[in-house]
Amino acid sequence: MLSPKELRPYAKYGDCVKSPLAKFRRLNSLIEVDQDINNVKMLDGDVPLSQSFPNGQLIKTLSITLNPSDEGLKENDGPVTKQQRIDDKRPEEWPIFDSSLKFQQAVNRIRTIFDVIEKLKFNKAKKPIRMNLGDPTIGKNIGPHEIILKAVEDVLKDGNFNGYLPAAGAQCSREAVAKKYSNPKAPIISDDVIITSGCSHALDMAIAALSENGRNILVPDIGFPLYSALCRKNDIKVRTYPINMEEGVIDLKRLEEQIDKNTIAMIVNNPMNPAGIVFSKSHLEEVLKIAHKYKIIIIADEIYGDLTFNNANFHSLATLSPKVPIICCDGISKRYLVPGWRLGWLILYNRYNALDNIKSTILTLTQHMMGPCALIQGALPAILEKTPLSFHENICNLLQNNADIVYKKISDIPGLKPLKPYGAMYMMVKIDPKIYGNEWEFIENLIKEESVYCFHGSLFNATNWFRMLLTFPEEVTKEACDRIAMFCFKQQQQKLINGKK
Amino acid sequence: MLSPKELRPYAKYGDCVKSPLAKFRRLNSLIEVDQDINNVKMLDGDVPLSQSFPNGQLIKTLSITLNPSDEGLKENDGPVTKQQRIDDKRPEEWPIFDSSLKFQQAVNRIRTIFDVIEKLKFNKAKKPIRMNLGDPTIGKNIGPHEIILKAVEDVLKDGNFNGYLPAAGAQCSREAVAKKYSNPKAPIISDDVIITSGCSHALDMAIAALSENGRNILVPDIGFPLYSALCRKNDIKVRTYPINMEEGVIDLKRLEEQIDKNTIAMIVNNPMNPAGIVFSKSHLEEVLKIAHKYKIIIIADEIYGDLTFNNANFHSLATLSPKVPIICCDGISKRYLVPGWRLGWLILYNRYNALDNIKSTILTLTQHMMGPCALIQGALPAILEKTPLSFHENICNLLQNNADIVYKKISDIPGLKPLKPYGAMYMMVKIDPKIYGNEWEFIENLIKEESVYCFHGSLFNATNWFRMLLTFPEEVTKEACDRIAMFCFKQQQQKLINGKK
Repeated sequence: MLSPKELRPYAKYGDCVKSPLAKFRRLNSLIEVDQDINNVKMLDGDVPLSQSFPNGQLIKTLSITLNPSDEGLKENDGPVTKQQRIDDKRPEEWPIFDSSLKFQQAVNRIRTIFDVIEKLKFNKAKKPIRMNLGDPTIGKNIGPHEIILKAVEDVLKDGNFNGYLPAAGAQCSREAVAKKYSNPKAPIISDDVIITSGCSHALDMAIAALSENGRNILVPDIGFPLYSALCRKNDIKVRTYPINMEEGVIDLKRLEEQIDKNTIAMIVNNPMNPAGIVFSKSHLEEVLKIAHKYKIIIIADEIYGDLTFNNANFHSLATLSPKVPIICCDGISKRYLVPGWRLGWLILYNRYNALDNIKSTILTLTQHMMGPCALIQGALPAILEKTPLSFHENICNLLQNNADIVYKKISDIPGLKPLKPYGAMYMMVKIDPKIYGNEWEFIENLIKEESVYCFHGSLFNATNWFRMLLTFPEEVTKEACDRIAMFCFKQQQQKLINGKK
Repeated sequence: MLSPKELRPYAKYGDCVKSPLAKFRRLNSLIEVDQDINNVKMLDGDVPLSQSFPNGQLIKTLSITLNPSDEGLKENDGPVTKQQRIDDKRPEEWPIFDSSLKFQQAVNRIRTIFDVIEKLKFNKAKKPIRMNLGDPTIGKNIGPHEIILKAVEDVLKDGNFNGYLPAAGAQCSREAVAKKYSNPKAPIISDDVIITSGCSHALDMAIAALSENGRNILVPDIGFPLYSALCRKNDIKVRTYPINMEEGVIDLKRLEEQIDKNTIAMIVNNPMNPAGIVFSKSHLEEVLKIAHKYKIIIIADEIYGDLTFNNANFHSLATLSPKVPIICCDGISKRYLVPGWRLGWLILYNRYNALDNIKSTILTLTQHMMGPCALIQGALPAILEKTPLSFHENICNLLQNNADIVYKKISDIPGLKPLKPYGAMYMMVKIDPKIYGNEWEFIENLIKEESVYCFHGSLFNATNWFRMLLTFPEEVTKEACDRIAMFCFKQQQQKLINGKK
């Protein structure tokens, strides 16, 4: 039984309750709390609890947790009886234990494929060009600005960021993100920000917190495969909505058709991986209208935010109307060229207080791992404030330049069709399988003959496309295109010879 | 339907299969693979699949994943019909959405209590002494060795650790851990090591991988509350086994009684938080005997390994007999005084190949977040190799010295009874509630009057005990004890006055 003393430490002090009768769940029971939290009463539990709340504080939210001994009772249903032990068959030899099926299947295909590709034989006469992974530092031509390195060095020397930080992130880091990303149309404060181990961790916690029996999330198709892996891991069903790659839009009609009573959220990735689409303001407003109409939370994956070119402009979803509750996932990986530092964040745009419970659960989840490396958290304010605008402009210029080169060169190759990107760091190229076989054959042979690595379109659900990274030096980018051209030329010749035989 | 082409990228090339007929699960179906993987056949699925495996490679393990389009079909059961959409009621106003009950309840009580305690009023006339959190750097008297700082600085300057690393950790870090911890009685190689975001992340993944319907894990009682939080989060039932605090042993009889057919693992924490117990070699061997008898995996939380004093010796479970499969969770947080850097690891002692499937699932899980900060991973080899032994000895000396001081001073206070620790960083003290009220009152009043912060024993299931951190400078430790003595003295006087009234 929970005594008020034991309840108290778990309650958050402040303000007053929202509804005259706030209801809180405690396992399968309901707890009724009156307006001034003078009374806490179990409604349908087998543990009767009806006691005055000691200090009569006004409490905004009350999150109930079993106390340790109570927990013990609940989970530990008495010692096993001797008879049970005899009946309970234990293995006589060590088995190869089954593992969790759910987690086993929550594969992030990019990484699995990556590992397999790494083991393929490449042409040792040619220096490998690895355009497969989304790591902008891989060509070694671009890397973090000296201000970014200096920021970490300073923190290291100060010695104030070696110990544990608050689970939701260092106050200074949360404030720095809030300051950088607060917008008159979407104002935020540090309390709306949670610091995470990269954008993937932010996505994982957002999706986990939304998980409830039968709920589904709409994910883009084509899209980043981690979304469905994280949904599967967190017991959320996946429904896909189609992206029209060539037109650079979401098929809004089919998006709307996918919504049912169990749809809790949709993931919007903009700028988009892998196709480099940057959605227009008016198109994003149409998406928001649908989310608002059906009361759907948006998880905005904006990790490529501001990485745009070819005159495209990035609009963060939270700054547009109509206003819907948004969980924005982001980080320093791509724009600051330090994906390995694993520093991301999520921003909760808690419109209509719709995310109150979800936020509280995300905060609980942060406590399991205690956030990203404190050194990087300590450096974050300087990184966000001091990195010059020209640093980001240079990256965008490089992307634009490479995109132009690749587009032109690949367009000249028969049977390959590049898609013009406007943002992110990639170009998608369509393969004519009648000439080159399917994408698996194309990529495997390209590695074998020309040591050029690309990623399979199927990873993103774009069969017979491949993805190329656009962050290499100009001359390497050109070389890669030339090797692809050479490969294709040989393939066509081979096909002609085989045809004649 | 999975074509062999689609299967291939998910298979791991190498070696040969272990058993003549290896069986792999694919959702609810079984896939049969013959010895040379020349044939892949669905056993009981509704998707018939019986095709030659193209290249006839020898494959050790085959992890099957649906391809993207197959996944789409499985999860996305066609567009919602118009009628369904009319029937499916969507909310008309924005609700406060429910959050995942499971994750909501997976509270790490230490952090929750910590947040509440931080908001309590302390005596502003006295400088706070925060002996509650398990952060050895908090007193600012001890911190990482200059070699450790230099290692990170070097990596920062080299610039080779800004990009993504393999999800399971940098090869150099895995090798460094293997080299440091390999033992003739428990040899390991880099492949047995997975680098994690702190020991908590290692525990989380180990527990997640073991999760299957109905399974339970034995956790120590008293013990670290994160264990049950992680079990709850990962759908594993918790059964507790009792620790006899005063005698410093596990109650082996009751441990054995808790095992049933669904028991998959037990967590052994040694040296032990919060009680500072260091289990003897012979006692650990008794534990191993039980695990071996019932075929139970051991999750060894050895984050305080080697932090021993009072002539106690630490024995890593994996080095003792009988040999059982062990997942050892550890990290640099406590011994290298950098808990905020979030660098941990797990070592799989895969005896009898019992952990084959579990390891594969843990590897899948690492792909969701891509491991800890690359800078620290890059520095790990130097940290583990170059930190002088004297650094660790100094920490142990400080702990021993503080333990002696606290033990002596607290023993002199009527109604308080300290427990002598032999390892980790804490001392537990028993409160006589007849004199001081329960632990909540004791701790709250101690903060209010003397600004000394301790942690509630109930967090660890030790009601009416409190935990003190032993890593402060000697003079601060003494001051804390003196303030506690003063507080107790006043409480007793108050009690006398109240008694006379």
